[in-house]
Amino acid sequence: MKVINYPKKEDWQEILKRPALNTDSLNDTVLGILNRVKSEGDQAVLEYEATFDKVQLGNLAVTPEELREAEALVSEELKAAILLAKENIDTFHRAQVFTGKKVETRPGVVCWQKAVGIEKVGLYVPGGTAPLFSTVLMLAVPARIAGCKEIVLCTPPNREGKVHPAILFAASQAGVSKIFKAGGVQAIAAMAYGTESVPKVYKIFGPGNQYVTAAKQLVSLRDVAIDMPAGPSEVEVLADASANPAFVAADLLSQAEHGVDSQAILITTSPALIEKVVEEVEQQLARLPRKEIASKSLENSKLILVNNLDEAIEMTNDYAPEHLILETEDYMAVAERISNAGSVFLGSLTPESAGDYASGTNHTLPTNGYAKAYSGVSLDSFIRKITFQEISREGIQTIGPAIEIMAANEQLDAHKNAVTVRLNTLKS
Amino acid sequence: MKVINYPKKEDWQEILKRPALNTDSLNDTVLGILNRVKSEGDQAVLEYEATFDKVQLGNLAVTPEELREAEALVSEELKAAILLAKENIDTFHRAQVFTGKKVETRPGVVCWQKAVGIEKVGLYVPGGTAPLFSTVLMLAVPARIAGCKEIVLCTPPNREGKVHPAILFAASQAGVSKIFKAGGVQAIAAMAYGTESVPKVYKIFGPGNQYVTAAKQLVSLRDVAIDMPAGPSEVEVLADASANPAFVAADLLSQAEHGVDSQAILITTSPALIEKVVEEVEQQLARLPRKEIASKSLENSKLILVNNLDEAIEMTNDYAPEHLILETEDYMAVAERISNAGSVFLGSLTPESAGDYASGTNHTLPTNGYAKAYSGVSLDSFIRKITFQEISREGIQTIGPAIEIMAANEQLDAHKNAVTVRLNTLKS
Repeated sequence: MKVINYPKKEDWQEILKRPALNTDSLNDTVLGILNRVKSEGDQAVLEYEATFDKVQLGNLAVTPEELREAEALVSEELKAAILLAKENIDTFHRAQVFTGKKVETRPGVVCWQKAVGIEKVGLYVPGGTAPLFSTVLMLAVPARIAGCKEIVLCTPPNREGKVHPAILFAASQAGVSKIFKAGGVQAIAAMAYGTESVPKVYKIFGPGNQYVTAAKQLVSLRDVAIDMPAGPSEVEVLADASANPAFVAADLLSQAEHGVDSQAILITTSPALIEKVVEEVEQQLARLPRKEIASKSLENSKLILVNNLDEAIEMTNDYAPEHLILETEDYMAVAERISNAGSVFLGSLTPESAGDYASGTNHTLPTNGYAKAYSGVSLDSFIRKITFQEISREGIQTIGPAIEIMAANEQLDAHKNAVTVRLNTLKS
Repeated sequence: MKVINYPKKEDWQEILKRPALNTDSLNDTVLGILNRVKSEGDQAVLEYEATFDKVQLGNLAVTPEELREAEALVSEELKAAILLAKENIDTFHRAQVFTGKKVETRPGVVCWQKAVGIEKVGLYVPGGTAPLFSTVLMLAVPARIAGCKEIVLCTPPNREGKVHPAILFAASQAGVSKIFKAGGVQAIAAMAYGTESVPKVYKIFGPGNQYVTAAKQLVSLRDVAIDMPAGPSEVEVLADASANPAFVAADLLSQAEHGVDSQAILITTSPALIEKVVEEVEQQLARLPRKEIASKSLENSKLILVNNLDEAIEMTNDYAPEHLILETEDYMAVAERISNAGSVFLGSLTPESAGDYASGTNHTLPTNGYAKAYSGVSLDSFIRKITFQEISREGIQTIGPAIEIMAANEQLDAHKNAVTVRLNTLKS
C-alpha cells in the first residue's frame, strides 16, 4: 500500500488514475469466435467449450433433472442465505417499479411513458473457482420483476460438464427461463446471435474476464445492447478519525481479494487512521486464504491523507468509485454531497459485502470512473419506457400552428403538411 | 412504394429488414480525426473546420454578442413557437423527476436510490440546410431539469462562420452553458477529450451523419457515454379501415422527406386503405419542396396488408418502429399491446410531427429495431441513480450471517471477514 500525504490538486488526476483498459489487442481473436458462432451455431459453441473449458458436451441446455440434482446438493444453510438475499433484492427492486403518469402539456395534448420489460435478456455468469450465484440473483430477480419474458443464462460448466449447484439453485429460485453450459466469448456470441439451442436476446448482462468484456463491446456496436462497459472492481473508503481501523482494513481487503487488478483506496483526514489501518491490513491479510491475490492487489492500493472533509469529498467525486464506504462522524451530510459513485455504504456497520450479497441493492455497478455517466444495474436496466401521446381536436388546434411554423423553418414541409391536412379537416 | 399482400410469417423478417448499417469502413478516417483532436486540441478542430465546413474561424466559442444578434434575427412568430414547444417539453420531462424512496428490506437495512444529474453533457446538433433547433430543445431542456452543471453544444457554422440564429435562440432559451462552432467528427472528439476551449463531457447526445455516428460509437468504447446507437429515421402507421388516407399519406411522407434512407411503412387490415393511400401520396408528393428526397425514400417504403389486427400488432412488435402511429378505431386497446416501439401516436389527430416538435415528448428515439432494448431520450438519460444503504446494529445482525455464508461459498473470505469483524464488535 502506498501512503500519499496531502497531495496537491494538480497531482490528483495522476494519483486517481486507473490502470489502462485496452481490449483492442484481443479483438481479432474475439471477432473470430463471434463470427464462427454466428454462422455455425451450436456446433461452434460445443467445439469452443471443448477447447477452452476442456469439456465434451452432448448438448448445451441444463436439463430439469440437473436442476433437481443441484437442489439436493446445496446445503440448507446456503439455501436459506440465498433466499434471504433474494427476498431483499426483490423488495428493493420491486420498489423501483415505474408507473407512468399522464401529463397534459396543453389542453387536449396528453403524454405519458409506459415501462415495458425487454422481452429477451441474456445473463452471463462467469465460471472459475468461485461460483457467482450472487450475480445470478442480482440479474435474474430484477429481470423477472421487469416482466422479461425470456431470461437466458449462460455459464461455463466444469470439466465434468456440470454447472455449480448453487448457481443452478439461485437461477431456479430467481426465475431464469433457460440455462446453458457455455462460457466466454462463445456464450456472448450465442446470446447475441442465437443458435439452434440458445435464443437470441436483446440485451446481455453480467461480468466476465477481458475476453468476455471485449465480446460484449463488439456485439454492442450493432447486434444487441449490454448492461454497461466493464472494468476491474474498486472500492473507496472515505473516513475520518472516528472510523474503526479494523473495519476499514477489512473493507479494503475484501476488494483486494477480487483480483490483482482490483482497486482499493482510502481517503482520510486522519494520519492516525492511516497508521492503524496499515497495521490492521497486515494482521488480517495473514489470515486470508486468498492472501496472494490480495497482497498483489494491495501493491496498487493507495491511502491518501487530505487536509479536510471538503477536499476528501471533492477527490471522491473526481475518482467516481464503484463502491464508496463513508465512515465519518456525520456520514449523512457527506452522502448528500456525493455526486459520482455507484453504490454508497453509510456508517461503520455497512460494509461493501452487504451490498455485494444481501442488503437488496444491486452489485452490478459502474467501474473505471463510469459512475460519472452510468448508473448501476437496477430495474431500469431491464425495461424500456415507451412514450405515448394522444391529441384531441382542441389539442391539435392549440399546438398545430406552432408545429407548422417550426417545421417550415426546419425546411421539413411534409412535417408541416401532416398537421395542415388535419387542421383543414377540422375547419370544414 | 411496394404493396405486399398477406405475407406469410416466415417472410416477415425479410420484409421488415432495414438496410444494413455499417460504419466500419469509415473507422480509419474517423479514428485519425479523433486522435488528432485528442492530441492537438483546438488547433486541430479549427483546421478540420476549414477543411470540412470551408470556414476560417478565429475561435470556436459563440460569443454573447452573437447570441444577442441571433435573438434579433429570429422572427417573433418562430420565437413564440419555440417557446411553446419548450414549455411543453419542460412540462413533460419535469413530470419525470425521480424521487427515491427509502426501502427497509429488513429491520435496520435501509436502501434507496438518488437521482443525480450527469455533471457535464455534450449536445451535438448537425448543420446542413435545415437548422435543427427542435433537437436543441429536446436535449437541452431535460439536461437542465436533470441538473447537469455544464451543458455544452457543438454545431457546425456556415461558410461565414455563423450558426443559424434559431439554433442559438433555442440554446439560450433552453439553458445551454457553452456553444461551440464545430461539426462532424471533430466536434465529437472535442467533447469526448476536451480541448483548450471545449470542456470534456461525460456523455454525448444528438443525431448526425454516418461519420458522426461512427465517431460516437468509437468514443463510447472507452472515453464517454453516448445517448444510443443511431440509424436512419423510420415511421410505421398501423391502420384499419377507419383511418383517413390523407392523414396516413401525410405521415408516411413526413418520414420520407428526412432522407433517402428513411423508412416509412404502413401495416393495415384494409385493402381499400392501401389503394387510397397510394393515390394520396402521389397527390401530396407533387406539392412537396423536398419531393426528390421523398420519392427516392418511398421506393423502399412498404404498404403491407395483413389478415387481422392481431397479425398487425405482432408484426409491429417484430419491427419495433422508432415512431408508431395508431390509426385504428379502438387505438387504446391496440396501444396496450405494443411492446416494442420508441414513441406511439394515438388516433387520427396525433401526427408524428407533434412529437417531433411540440407535444412535449422527446424526439430522440431508438431506430433500427433498437426499441427492443433501448428507450428514447428522457430525463433518465441525463441522470444517474446512485444507490445508498445504511445498516444498523440490528440490521447487520439480521443479514450478517447470510452474507458470511454466501461469501464463504463464493470463496471470498475477506468479504466474509468484513462482516465478521463487525459482528464481533457487537457481541462484546
